[in-house]
This record gives sequence, structure tokens and C-alpha cells, in this order.
Amino acid sequence: MRQSSHGPIGVFDSGVGGLTVLKALMERLPHESTLYLGDTARVPYGTKSGEVVTRYSLKNAQFLLEKGIKLLVVACNTASAVALPALAAALPVPVMGVIAPGAQAALRRTKGGGVGVIGTPGTIRSGAYQRELQRADPHVPVKARACPLFVPLAEEGWTQGDVPALVAREYLADFAREGVDTLVLGCTHYPLLKDVIAQVVGPRVALVDSAEATAEAVAALLERTQGLAPPGPAPVHGYFVTDVPERFVEVGARFLGRPIASAEQVDLSF
Amino acid sequence: MRQSSHGPIGVFDSGVGGLTVLKALMERLPHESTLYLGDTARVPYGTKSGEVVTRYSLKNAQFLLEKGIKLLVVACNTASAVALPALAAALPVPVMGVIAPGAQAALRRTKGGGVGVIGTPGTIRSGAYQRELQRADPHVPVKARACPLFVPLAEEGWTQGDVPALVAREYLADFAREGVDTLVLGCTHYPLLKDVIAQVVGPRVALVDSAEATAEAVAALLERTQGLAPPGPAPVHGYFVTDVPERFVEVGARFLGRPIASAEQVDLSF
Repeated sequence: MRQSSHGPIGVFDSGVGGLTVLKALMERLPHESTLYLGDTARVPYGTKSGEVVTRYSLKNAQFLLEKGIKLLVVACNTASAVALPALAAALPVPVMGVIAPGAQAALRRTKGGGVGVIGTPGTIRSGAYQRELQRADPHVPVKARACPLFVPLAEEGWTQGDVPALVAREYLADFAREGVDTLVLGCTHYPLLKDVIAQVVGPRVALVDSAEATAEAVAALLERTQGLAPPGPAPVHGYFVTDVPERFVEVGARFLGRPIASAEQVDLSF
Repeated sequence: MRQSSHGPIGVFDSGVGGLTVLKALMERLPHESTLYLGDTARVPYGTKSGEVVTRYSLKNAQFLLEKGIKLLVVACNTASAVALPALAAALPVPVMGVIAPGAQAALRRTKGGGVGVIGTPGTIRSGAYQRELQRADPHVPVKARACPLFVPLAEEGWTQGDVPALVAREYLADFAREGVDTLVLGCTHYPLLKDVIAQVVGPRVALVDSAEATAEAVAALLERTQGLAPPGPAPVHGYFVTDVPERFVEVGARFLGRPIASAEQVDLSF
């Protein structure tokens, strides 16, 4: 399949978390224009059913498609875990989730001691990481755990100190004891809690976050399909949100590592 | 105004929390039929903007209105704080929120030492409790604090033990020091954390939750407007949700204190 090299890369997430994926994309593919949609009026996805997350994902994708994207990146782990088949079937452009790249990155890191996966209830319940890991390597031991409080802790900015340390111990003590050697941070918010997570699981466990692996997979796909934007005028980056933009612009800059000049509010309750 | 005595009382909330208000209503008004709508596909409201919460509230109200309710109870503190004027203007039936009854209950309890209010970011930012308390008594000292992690803690079922105790200390140590004598639990989830909250603020602080006060205010309104259902056949209680019903039915029974036979899923993204 030859891919159009015109049009921006579309990225959606339930909120600000997916900006870590966008950041990796911008670094890996500096000539590409991007459009990012954060569904801040309906965040979070991780505690909702697969049915509802799929419905929201299709609406997000439809919105970006109408803006002329050439490829869709589903930056939200929960949406990647439950909605990828529906999105791939509905869209005329390639769709890339974060689960497969994250799982493959984990398999490259593990030395046979087993892979742990943490994520939202929706992601873990779906079994998507577990399936992807065992499809690629049927012999790898996999252990998964939902950590519902990590998202509100990261959103609250409580990423250091006693509270996150205690919560991380509650969720992750088993991983530390049972000796996985690699842990997938299966939610875009979790890298913000990397320090406390590392402290609980110890220095012998490698932490894998899928942002860079996903950017690499997108680059490989665009190269393979001759879809890379030619070097030329400076790329354009646009931002859309479904709730009022103020908080997104402010908090998002922390996730993206550069200022967000503005974001446009759109209503997707069609 | 003479109120129709036919039709159920409508109650909506962002999720399961409002069932504590429904429970108080059922106990205070045992002859009334009720319809409850939990907007579980878009929960939580407390972290979203007033604009989006008002939009969702109007959709919820419209749905219940089409089912023939004679009165609407807004069981969600955040929706009561930001959407009550818009709801009252849009609906042809009386609308009762939880803020005014809760504030008045607090003023009956305080002995002059000041009233504290805790709630979601949306509720506290709106200033609705603060305004209502000072309107009723301009001299009462009021201190308000948002506690964003209490909702996810209650939803996760972590209502006892080290984590909620530590979180409660972070949020409430000031209240304990500065000596309010009454604390309004300005979110329907917070009564689940009553024990840890009480432990932090100490035995001399009275905890007020608005469920009973709201049921009392609804009873008074229906009496005044001759809108009470006549004693007769057993009342009917119906439940609607916007995400899949399984978790609502299971968790809701704990909030309601009686089994929920079934809940019907409806799509309000019109």
C-alpha cells in the first residue's frame, strides 16, 4: 500500500497523557505535521466499558479524519486495548496503537525473567497486552495488574512523597517479590510516577514506556509505505480538546515538554 | 404553585454516588416512585469545567423529563454547584440541588466555630457552598478545600487503612488545626470515607452530609405544593445508566443499601 505523504499525523487520547506519545513522534519525525485531540470532556477512559470507549474512539477518529490526517495514532492505552479492531475496520487510513509497540519493546528488554504489565482497569481487563506478549513469545511469563489510582495521582500532581510511594507499594509489592525483570508502564500517565514505581520494584526491573516504541513503529510504517512528509516548510501542530482548553494548555506543556500556544474546543457529542 | 402528585421523582448523578441521596429520599418519602439516572459513561463531573457539566446536566434532565418526572433532584454536588440556574430555567418542573440543604444543615450544627466544606475541584471552584453559607449567615467563617483523590479512593474501595488516612491528613490537617466545628462532606462519595475523615479532624468536628437534608427539603417542597403521591400501590423504582449496567448494579447496591434488580443502559450523546 502506498500511503499519501500529505496531511498531518492524527493522534488522540482521553486527555493530556497522550502528549508523551506526541512528544516522541515529534522527536522521531521532526518534519511531520500533527493534529492532537484530547477528549477531556469524557476523560478518563480507563474505568469505562469497552463498548463506551470504542464509541468515543470512533468519534475521535472521525473528527480527525475529517481534518485530513494520513495516519491515526491511538495514544491512549485503554482505547488501543479495546477499540483498535473497530478503528482499523472503520478508517480508510492506517491505525497504530501503543500496545503492540510497547509489548515488543518489553520483549526486547526482558532477559527471560518475565514481563509485568500495569495499566488502567480497562486495559488490564481487556487482556490486550497479555495476548500481544504471548502471541510474540508464547513462553514468556506475564503478570498483569490494574492500578486505578495512578491516573488521579498523576493528574493531582502527587508524583513524589509518601502517598504515591504507599499506593505503589500496595499495587506493586507482588511484582517486586515475584521477580519479573521488565515492567510495561501501560498507561500514558504512568511515566510521571516512574521514580516511585522504580523504587518499589527495584533497580533490576527495566521500566518500558511505549511512547518511543510507538514513534519508532510509526516511522517504520511511513517509510515502508512511502508516506513520510518531504523536508520542506516547518511542520504545523494543532490541538483540539472537548472540554475548555485552559487546563489542557497549562498541564499539557508539562507532558509535551514544550509550550502549547492554544487548543481549540470542539463538541463531539454528535 | 400546585404541583402534580403524579409521576416519579427524578434523580440524576454522575454515577453511583447519588444513590445515597436516593436512599434518603426512599426512607423519608416511602410512597414516592423514583427514576434514577447515573451518567456512568461520562463520570466524573468533579474534574470537568462548569460548561461541560452544565451541558451534561441538561441532557440528563431532559431524559428524565421525557419519562414524566414531577420534580428533579440533582444528587451530584458538582452539578448542583454549577448547573442549577440553567436547569431551573430550562425545566417546567421544580429542581432541587444538594448544596442549599447541605449548607443549611451545617448552619444548624455549627456552634460558631466556623464551617468547613470539602468537595471536588468543580464544586469548590464554583464557590457555591461558600456563597450559600454566607448568604444565610454573613458572619459564619467558611473554609473550603478540594479533595480530588477522595472520589477515586472511594471508587477503588480503599476507604480504610494507611492510604486513605495519609491522603486525608494531606487534605484536612489545616481543618483540624484551624478549628472549624462543622465539616460539610460536599460530594456524595465522601460519606464512604467518613471514618478516616473523622479521625483526622477529630471528635469535636461534626460531619454533615447533604443526603438527609436534601430528602427533608424535597418532602417539604412536595407538601407545600400538594405534590406528594397519595398512599396506594407500591412505588416503582427505575434505574438508568449511560455505560454498561453491570458495575452500577453491583456497586450501587452498597451505596443504596438494598439490591438493584436491573438498570437500563441509555445513550445520551444526542
